Amino acid sequence: MIPPGSTIGILGGGQLGRMLAIAAASMGYRVHSYAPDDEIPGGDVSAEVTRAAYDDVAALDRFAASVDVVTYEFENIDVAAVERVAAIVPVRPGAAALRVSQDRVAEKEFVTALGGRPAPFRAVDSLADLAVALAELGAPTLLKTRRFGYDGKGQARIDTAADAERAWASIGERPAVLEGLVRFDAEFSVLLARGVDGATRVYATPRNEHANGVLSCSVVPAGAPVDAQAPAAIALARKVADALDYVGLLTLEFFATPDGPVFNEMAPRVHNSGHWTIEGARVSQFENHIRAVCGLPLGDPSLTAPAVRLDNLLGDAVHDWQSILADPHAHLHLYGKGQVKPGRKMGHVTRL
Amino acid sequence: MIPPGSTIGILGGGQLGRMLAIAAASMGYRVHSYAPDDEIPGGDVSAEVTRAAYDDVAALDRFAASVDVVTYEFENIDVAAVERVAAIVPVRPGAAALRVSQDRVAEKEFVTALGGRPAPFRAVDSLADLAVALAELGAPTLLKTRRFGYDGKGQARIDTAADAERAWASIGERPAVLEGLVRFDAEFSVLLARGVDGATRVYATPRNEHANGVLSCSVVPAGAPVDAQAPAAIALARKVADALDYVGLLTLEFFATPDGPVFNEMAPRVHNSGHWTIEGARVSQFENHIRAVCGLPLGDPSLTAPAVRLDNLLGDAVHDWQSILADPHAHLHLYGKGQVKPGRKMGHVTRL
Repeated sequence: MIPPGSTIGILGGGQLGRMLAIAAASMGYRVHSYAPDDEIPGGDVSAEVTRAAYDDVAALDRFAASVDVVTYEFENIDVAAVERVAAIVPVRPGAAALRVSQDRVAEKEFVTALGGRPAPFRAVDSLADLAVALAELGAPTLLKTRRFGYDGKGQARIDTAADAERAWASIGERPAVLEGLVRFDAEFSVLLARGVDGATRVYATPRNEHANGVLSCSVVPAGAPVDAQAPAAIALARKVADALDYVGLLTLEFFATPDGPVFNEMAPRVHNSGHWTIEGARVSQFENHIRAVCGLPLGDPSLTAPAVRLDNLLGDAVHDWQSILADPHAHLHLYGKGQVKPGRKMGHVTRL
Repeated sequence: MIPPGSTIGILGGGQLGRMLAIAAASMGYRVHSYAPDDEIPGGDVSAEVTRAAYDDVAALDRFAASVDVVTYEFENIDVAAVERVAAIVPVRPGAAALRVSQDRVAEKEFVTALGGRPAPFRAVDSLADLAVALAELGAPTLLKTRRFGYDGKGQARIDTAADAERAWASIGERPAVLEGLVRFDAEFSVLLARGVDGATRVYATPRNEHANGVLSCSVVPAGAPVDAQAPAAIALARKVADALDYVGLLTLEFFATPDGPVFNEMAPRVHNSGHWTIEGARVSQFENHIRAVCGLPLGDPSLTAPAVRLDNLLGDAVHDWQSILADPHAHLHLYGKGQVKPGRKMGHVTRL
């Protein structure tokens, strides 16, 4: 057990780190945040901050030596950085979860091997590969970079074979995966916490809506099509977590289709679609992640209200804070980001 | 309005500052904590920390210049420090509330003038005064220093006139107040938030239990004797807040007696007996204090559960964290204090 009073290292400097740091502080932990970014929202609530690149081995070694356990809040950190740190101090979840989730092809193959069903896909390393894959899958499809994509970045839709060259150029002619477009009734995610002892806790399954590739809202209860498919999705998430000997909060995203749940992608971290758990669950995804990482018993994920809704506050929208603050059912969260950019996640509102 | 993204200065470095800083960070504010202490629990969740004495005018000026608004979390800060800061940046609540609540005699006279009823009391500046006051009030009584007492410190009970000299010596022969001992059915507190526009929000009135002068638990609902007397106590708290043009969370402590509520003392800050509001109210005392200080609309103080109980975790007790963490109705809060001392407030548990 990593007892309260110890220092938790967090790799990554976004709003997820900020909310993890707040949960950690509430339980008596110190936080040391490590990120290369100019602006580190988690830094303002951390006892220590290291601003350094993920390949700065001297900084990584100092960071690792200064903390009792490490976690990450961003899945696009180089595995080598995590392995460097893990040689000095426990990293939870470990490098394996990161490695699988950084490569869309590896991730789909891993999940398929455990009985999951992703959309039909083909690995694509060249324009020639793309032509073959398109012929096999048939349009419409989505071309995505194999690595380092998130929030709709590094993706291009292909509606006809004539789009292929433009799409290939638009993603930077990098190793990619072509996915058959899934016709779905709803999108949803499984939020599962797993402890060092293998115990798991699962949150109510939110139905998620996206706009321009970015989550716009999550709703619990999710409603009929999702609720019927959630048990199979949760069973798969549990298999994934067990196979990786995962410690922490794991997220799997799915499409609810007429043929059952189709796996979309996973994130080895707390997730935007679980931000409602701060007020909407007895113990939030952030606290349960910290509990897991520190080897404490996991907390109760059950709902505190019959219905919960999360809305993201994006940088390009005008938000009426006064009316949000005046709504007795609304909880406003802002991430302390100074730079407002279109689509940037500035905060969220949870309504019970 | 002090908009999110601004910096809030907090004078005082204890657990109240830590919980205020967490509430501020959740709403997108930065925090700069100022305290002289070796260990500053609020510092670990602050973007900036100044470790300096309250009479270090250069440090106070730098602090004031670096923030957009200031509040305090400790009522025993020298009024001169607050006035120094207030010349540069708004301080909420202001120096007036601090001045009244730092002097037990001034506080009782202030509350009496507003229609409140404290225990019978006499100002005592010498052993001769004490003899006269004892003769007038009759034992048993409590002798308390006029200034800078808290959590039962600077107090001595006098059961017979023969105790007077020992009691006078034990409180350091300092200006004091002698109070008639109140026979009460219960102790309770009023937690009232007041905004810059004068709007108020009042939390459910907790019944409080003390041990060795330190709060041990608070319970809501408080039960019959308290609930019957709460309206009069709340009306008095509102008068106090209005008279001081108070901005922030104000606490008044009372005894429920057969003759109605007897005013005990006030604190111009968030209060230990309101820590349960983090999970037990829709908007906590900490968030409402921050909202008030920043000129935002106040939030809903209503209960999230039919019954709430707060227990303090003190430094001399052995606490079974594992069983607290395993209890689905319990929320564990620890303050990150490294030095464990008997009676020191190390954390608290809220049970819904």
